[in-house]
Amino acid sequence: MTAEIITIGDELLIGQVVNTNAAWIGEQLHLLGVDLVRVISLGDDEQIIQDEVSRALSAAEFVVVTGGLGPTHDDVTKTAVAALFGAPLQFDEAVYEHVKARFARRGRRMAESNRTQAMVPAGFHVLPNPVGTAPGLWYVDGRSGTERLLAVLPGVPHEMRHLMLNEVLPRLREHRGLRIIVHRTLLTTGIGESDLQDRIGDVSKLLSPTCRLAYLPGTTGVRLRLTAYGHDREEVHGMLDRLEAHLRQTAGRYIFGENDDTLEAVVGRALAERGLTVAVAESCTGGYVLNRLTNTPGASAYVVGGIVAYSNRAKVGLLGVDPATLDDEGAVSGTVAAQLARGVRKRFGTDIGISTTGVAGPAGGTPDKPVGTVWIGYSDASGDHATLHHFVEERILNKELSSTAALNLIRRRITET
Amino acid sequence: MTAEIITIGDELLIGQVVNTNAAWIGEQLHLLGVDLVRVISLGDDEQIIQDEVSRALSAAEFVVVTGGLGPTHDDVTKTAVAALFGAPLQFDEAVYEHVKARFARRGRRMAESNRTQAMVPAGFHVLPNPVGTAPGLWYVDGRSGTERLLAVLPGVPHEMRHLMLNEVLPRLREHRGLRIIVHRTLLTTGIGESDLQDRIGDVSKLLSPTCRLAYLPGTTGVRLRLTAYGHDREEVHGMLDRLEAHLRQTAGRYIFGENDDTLEAVVGRALAERGLTVAVAESCTGGYVLNRLTNTPGASAYVVGGIVAYSNRAKVGLLGVDPATLDDEGAVSGTVAAQLARGVRKRFGTDIGISTTGVAGPAGGTPDKPVGTVWIGYSDASGDHATLHHFVEERILNKELSSTAALNLIRRRITET
Repeated sequence: MTAEIITIGDELLIGQVVNTNAAWIGEQLHLLGVDLVRVISLGDDEQIIQDEVSRALSAAEFVVVTGGLGPTHDDVTKTAVAALFGAPLQFDEAVYEHVKARFARRGRRMAESNRTQAMVPAGFHVLPNPVGTAPGLWYVDGRSGTERLLAVLPGVPHEMRHLMLNEVLPRLREHRGLRIIVHRTLLTTGIGESDLQDRIGDVSKLLSPTCRLAYLPGTTGVRLRLTAYGHDREEVHGMLDRLEAHLRQTAGRYIFGENDDTLEAVVGRALAERGLTVAVAESCTGGYVLNRLTNTPGASAYVVGGIVAYSNRAKVGLLGVDPATLDDEGAVSGTVAAQLARGVRKRFGTDIGISTTGVAGPAGGTPDKPVGTVWIGYSDASGDHATLHHFVEERILNKELSSTAALNLIRRRITET
Repeated sequence: MTAEIITIGDELLIGQVVNTNAAWIGEQLHLLGVDLVRVISLGDDEQIIQDEVSRALSAAEFVVVTGGLGPTHDDVTKTAVAALFGAPLQFDEAVYEHVKARFARRGRRMAESNRTQAMVPAGFHVLPNPVGTAPGLWYVDGRSGTERLLAVLPGVPHEMRHLMLNEVLPRLREHRGLRIIVHRTLLTTGIGESDLQDRIGDVSKLLSPTCRLAYLPGTTGVRLRLTAYGHDREEVHGMLDRLEAHLRQTAGRYIFGENDDTLEAVVGRALAERGLTVAVAESCTGGYVLNRLTNTPGASAYVVGGIVAYSNRAKVGLLGVDPATLDDEGAVSGTVAAQLARGVRKRFGTDIGISTTGVAGPAGGTPDKPVGTVWIGYSDASGDHATLHHFVEERILNKELSSTAALNLIRRRITET
């Protein structure tokens, strides 16, 4: 099955927005075994959109269009697509009521321009959008003799993803003739790409043109993506099982999860299963560890709270750091990290306390403690300790890497002991 | 002048790589006033590349192709382009010496496959690549009577950028007849797209085919993008000045910044300019407000710290919330929000205290206080108060919207009073 993606919006052409939607949809199609031939970005120009959708439908079996579905005058995707099929726009009562209810729930009056969101091209199927106001559209085009499928989705990323996962991909899966392609992703953290490769060693005997392994480095760690193709489900899974077993045997301690797991969700699950609670004292990460931990639904079962102590006064007054230690070793030190972890554990009465203190940058570095120097502290009933990391020169990335190290430290301590 | 970008590589189609090259080139062309009509991503398929470059050259005056110039068998861009013009590949001694010297400098032996990097299509001009091995190519196509310009560049981002800045853009600037295009983006928050449109009212008298306004909604708010074209710089800026004046007059209180400003940086600047300090008490946002505030370099000048109080015990013990209020009104209430803001202000000794308490979801909603119910508290020397918001059903988005509302409340209070 072949596909094209058409992403719409002037903002894509002038570099104001990076086209993450296309990458995400491309990955989803790839996982399904659909062959994406072309991605096209266009401005909000009705005629060009109409021409391009028409061309795409003659070239590919499935076309997904995103963007330009909002209620304002520069959103012309729907009228372009409707015009292409000569389909008049018809008022859809159910969509209108959904949009109205959504505004009412948020205590806001609905502007009259939103009425346009309820106009649907005749013959198109509405894909309900519970996370936004613009519905998606689905059309099966039989004009050319072969069936062509068209999905039109909003450009807001979380709305697009919701509609793809819940409406579009199930419809595609039902479509016949897709070969079996199976992916598994093992998520590692705390080890670099080349060290990981050394540890895993020679896997050429387990690989083949239909069974592949890719190293995908990112800020949380290196993802190992295993892919196998075939026509026999058992055979495909057998290849992946053998490869996965080898990876787990050689690099298991660095593997924290699979597929869409996040480190924060894995840590949360590990805490919840053991009935453990955690509190966090953050200096250089400025709230990011707590933010990640509380992104997981149900986090209140194990996150009691935490303190962001940017000032030394807060470190002493709220977290019991010894002023003499601050004077002698500085705020960025192993002793202070351990005291912060212990202090926040005591303050919140939790099983575990964790802390970060470091030089996030761009300013504040010294020859002894350059930007990127970060201590992670850990405290539980058995004692306190701290580990030193040397990260990078970029502030946001330092916060990302430090928070990952802090979360991974919790994981290692509670799952390995 | 019209342009198209063609980015090449299987990795772009399967979601392994996000197409940042296209966004970067789009921005550069835009700054030059070149009208980018289309961005196309293709896999490493010689025939499709050839067809698409041919089509692009008949549709646009300038075509830039990136990717697929490496020495391996899946890099077919150069042969595809050469075949399109019937240009034989010729060995280029200077390129070969450059590649060899580059390997030698890094103490590595050059693999024979790199010899292909020195093969240049006859009639093409070499764009030297000092930061990599694959040279860029430049071609002026006069076949159709009007001159068409073609640049072929490596896909490695820093190599592509180097060649664009040093070789391609200067050549384009020399090209005659580039019209002026100017964009301004006004960033709003705290108002929905349609309410904003209603408030701004009828601007049709200020708009024309050469002066446009776009509404770009996102999680932080709606961006207003103003665009004007023309041949006279003063005239173009005059159109934008009139449009901007109208937008500021009708929606000024919702406009927090321009272009690449972030709300957290704007708030930080406003605090720093006034010598004010802030502390944050977070319940439903779980550290996200603090995280955003501390993303800005130099944040320690105005962020003293904060407390994430998920548990009621922490709200009472650390932040002085009245247990009777918790019993009577619940943790998600205006009174508790105000007490949290006051408590954290006192605790950290700051000028301003801000707080969040709400139901982030997915669980915890009640008929009275459904998921998405969020109170934002604010406290300064003049008193404490709280505002109620009704956000959405999605947890992460609730954290995003709540933190934006909290940051915007700081901005409004200190800049409007």
